[in-house]
Amino acid sequence: MKHAVIVEIISVGTELLLGNIVNTNAAWLSEQCAALGLSCFYQTVVGDNEERLGRALETALERSDVVILSGGLGPTADDLTKETAAGVMGRRLYMHEPSRKHIEEYFRKKQAGIPDSNWKQAMLPEKAVAVENENGTAPGVIIEEEGKTVILLPGPPGELIPMFQKSIFSYLSDRVGGTIHSRTVKICGIGESKAEAMVRDMIDAQTNPTIAPYAKSCEVHLRITARAESRERAKELISPLLDELYRRFGESIYTTEEGVTLERAVYELLRERGLTLCTAESCTGGRLSARMINVPGVSEVFQSGYVTYSDQAKEKILGVSGRLLEEYGAVSEQTAEAMALGAAAAAGADVAAAVTGIAGPGGGTAEKPVGLVYIACSVRGRVRTERYHFQGDREKIRETAVSSALILIRQCILDSHGR
Amino acid sequence: MKHAVIVEIISVGTELLLGNIVNTNAAWLSEQCAALGLSCFYQTVVGDNEERLGRALETALERSDVVILSGGLGPTADDLTKETAAGVMGRRLYMHEPSRKHIEEYFRKKQAGIPDSNWKQAMLPEKAVAVENENGTAPGVIIEEEGKTVILLPGPPGELIPMFQKSIFSYLSDRVGGTIHSRTVKICGIGESKAEAMVRDMIDAQTNPTIAPYAKSCEVHLRITARAESRERAKELISPLLDELYRRFGESIYTTEEGVTLERAVYELLRERGLTLCTAESCTGGRLSARMINVPGVSEVFQSGYVTYSDQAKEKILGVSGRLLEEYGAVSEQTAEAMALGAAAAAGADVAAAVTGIAGPGGGTAEKPVGLVYIACSVRGRVRTERYHFQGDREKIRETAVSSALILIRQCILDSHGR
Repeated sequence: MKHAVIVEIISVGTELLLGNIVNTNAAWLSEQCAALGLSCFYQTVVGDNEERLGRALETALERSDVVILSGGLGPTADDLTKETAAGVMGRRLYMHEPSRKHIEEYFRKKQAGIPDSNWKQAMLPEKAVAVENENGTAPGVIIEEEGKTVILLPGPPGELIPMFQKSIFSYLSDRVGGTIHSRTVKICGIGESKAEAMVRDMIDAQTNPTIAPYAKSCEVHLRITARAESRERAKELISPLLDELYRRFGESIYTTEEGVTLERAVYELLRERGLTLCTAESCTGGRLSARMINVPGVSEVFQSGYVTYSDQAKEKILGVSGRLLEEYGAVSEQTAEAMALGAAAAAGADVAAAVTGIAGPGGGTAEKPVGLVYIACSVRGRVRTERYHFQGDREKIRETAVSSALILIRQCILDSHGR
Repeated sequence: MKHAVIVEIISVGTELLLGNIVNTNAAWLSEQCAALGLSCFYQTVVGDNEERLGRALETALERSDVVILSGGLGPTADDLTKETAAGVMGRRLYMHEPSRKHIEEYFRKKQAGIPDSNWKQAMLPEKAVAVENENGTAPGVIIEEEGKTVILLPGPPGELIPMFQKSIFSYLSDRVGGTIHSRTVKICGIGESKAEAMVRDMIDAQTNPTIAPYAKSCEVHLRITARAESRERAKELISPLLDELYRRFGESIYTTEEGVTLERAVYELLRERGLTLCTAESCTGGRLSARMINVPGVSEVFQSGYVTYSDQAKEKILGVSGRLLEEYGAVSEQTAEAMALGAAAAAGADVAAAVTGIAGPGGGTAEKPVGLVYIACSVRGRVRTERYHFQGDREKIRETAVSSALILIRQCILDSHGR
């Protein structure tokens, strides 16, 4: 095992300095580097300016082993990350034939002419490695010198992420030495601080594997990362920690697969048990059905959803009785229950989830404040309704309500159709 | 008018370096600084580490006039931004009575005891200005020295944003000299590169006011910022540019108000013309209705939406004929049109928008590739249907489809009910 490798991330783009876009690349790259066991001490954002970018790269090379730059590999005159990096490393640029062919092929497939400026993207610094870009024309570049590595990646996340996953992750993993393996334990329905308290002792005792908590909306993800000589050995190191986490969190763990989202876990539960789902939404306005439709192939189990924002729509589409709406109000346990049962009947679905609440900013009262949300879930006619009081603004309340609905659906299926 | 002021943003927090959270503060602060006419050349992220933070601040002070640091003002031992800044500026810390009282008051209102560690937040560097924090216990801090300014802000956006808006914006505006006024011209339905080409001459010729383009999904925002001795004079400077932009972009400009979103513009059009809207969605799965429900008060004009993901749901809920689905397929002009008319009839709405397409990653064919989307909009029985071929992944295709639907709804209302 070699010494700790220090990485630094430089994001290039004037649009970042103008606040035009949020730097999601830096966060994503940092998370990947953390998973690889690299230490990151600085992220820098610099504009499309040769002098300042050059200086930032020089500073980074002085204090870090690996510098990852993203952005500025485009075809325009503004894009000068490759030119600047080549200058700092003392390399000339030459036309790299495979990259040139890739660009030709890319435009041929799109049946489009090749703008003259795009050839610039096929230029590569001497003795550098080109990294294939399956989603665009700019190749990635790896330049090594005297134990230091500079990695250039395209700025668009749709190009950067797949390129990193396919080529850079394993390159860096080799650089770190040994093999890195990680598993993500995804927990739902337990708050961030409670979940962290439940694993505080494991986090404090960590060396290898490490455990890092990541808080998401209504979820906590624990990433366990092991470094070992082989993949098998790394898995062996992780295994007892997985067992311990299952002992502590039980069925609150909905997956240990990085690629499985909460909506995907719900989809898989429905499919395995041969159930169909429909939704009836008021304050979430279609966001719950949109979450379900995030899952490719969901049409097997999810065919329809209803957005019933007004009382009239709740009556007409879901058959909620006017008397009930008048007596208890649209935001009530009774209405949520009637919405779920009405939706199940209208859609002929086995499972139905209904959400009704006050997302604000207006509309709250002392008795029914902003953030009050009722969620009902019926499974073949048996309904469970929960009352929530969410904090935050309109956006946050709705997002939390949608996650909570998915968690309730999962719970109701487990309760009625076995674990 | 003074010379251009250079600002630099340092975000402090190990959670940023681990990729645990995305640096939205830096983007928000940068946008504010751009609106103030400040030039930002670097953003830096550094962990809760005294040595590295100190070095980052020293470097920033060498090359910038104003350094804004956010984060690390909390009560824990990890939080050392104030201590480090005081050290770099050669100031001692003392107990600042008004801040101490504010903390007492804050916890008294919450009816909670004051943790011992919180007193640390009332310590202030000598000769610094404390900035009141209405949403937390950590005051902001302004330190001036030899023409340089260091501003410390709390990390939570719910504290940072209101503090900046209430106190820091006007402080920086004075620092820049004169008054800053800005207007945002929001353009829909014209691509980023086309819109930029249409104003390239105005951007190149800019001095005061400045024009900055911001690309959003299916929208381009042009922010015009004027600096003048008075607010009135700044408005006068902006006025001819607004006129010129209206001449060039006409009704593609949907608002010149910062706070008005595209969905809000659609809502206002519907309300002014006394129309109601409903939605029928397949590939967007409820995201279009969710966008509309972003607007508080939308229930006046939007009462229901249908998510019909399967053919069966399209038949049963929207009355699309099985023969039509079989002959043309679910993703077709004919189906989109039938969905819109069916939804209008089912909901009794004046306007109906329907979206059907192939969001991928699977399901595409040579004839109907991934990204093919049909959007239909009916206004009192008259339907217009458009065919789109969107680029990107499942997420991007659906987001673009939703924005395109809002633009089409707006266009159809303007066409049928006047400008």
